[in-house]
Amino acid sequence: MNLPRKSPCYAVIFTSTLADQNQGYDTMADRMQELAAQQPGYLGVESVRSPDGTGITISYWEDLSAIKAWKQNPEHLTAQELGKNQWYQNYSVEIARIESGYQFEQP
Amino acid sequence: MNLPRKSPCYAVIFTSTLADQNQGYDTMADRMQELAAQQPGYLGVESVRSPDGTGITISYWEDLSAIKAWKQNPEHLTAQELGKNQWYQNYSVEIARIESGYQFEQP
Repeated sequence: MNLPRKSPCYAVIFTSTLADQNQGYDTMADRMQELAAQQPGYLGVESVRSPDGTGITISYWEDLSAIKAWKQNPEHLTAQELGKNQWYQNYSVEIARIESGYQFEQP
Repeated sequence: MNLPRKSPCYAVIFTSTLADQNQGYDTMADRMQELAAQQPGYLGVESVRSPDGTGITISYWEDLSAIKAWKQNPEHLTAQELGKNQWYQNYSVEIARIESGYQFEQP
């Protein structure tokens, strides 16, 4: 967690269920996080996956154009195709505008 | 996953790390999901926790007033206090406006 982020900013909420056959997924997921962090307008990522294969990844961006550029990154496009063809049983993508936020840390 | 949701709508993104001592947490978390689903303006929830204790829960709501009412629900207020005092090592809360979304399901 890395609040306060610049606010307002934008988030891509990616909710997914992995397919049973997902060889190569972890490597690609790591690479995508590395690549996203190099994109202009990138503000951070939170990613959690449970043992049953469901996961939520939220990436944060300065504006919608940064999100669009990331979606069209050539290596990311390849990953998106592999995701549809091989790795994911299902997924959803939502674009959200972060309006406010706060955090708590145990003293 | 339950798209398309009504759009635009609002989401509460709750990212957390459980403390090592978290007795009673699972029961309360289940109860909170049950209670949230009875609130006016509730649209759904996605929740994932990894074995290392990090979790993301996203609840979806028709508008900001529904979120405010849920935050002030008496039983939820008790859970929030227990969360701060006992269960969470840290957490963040972000309020987001969902602008758009799409989903993919393996044929």
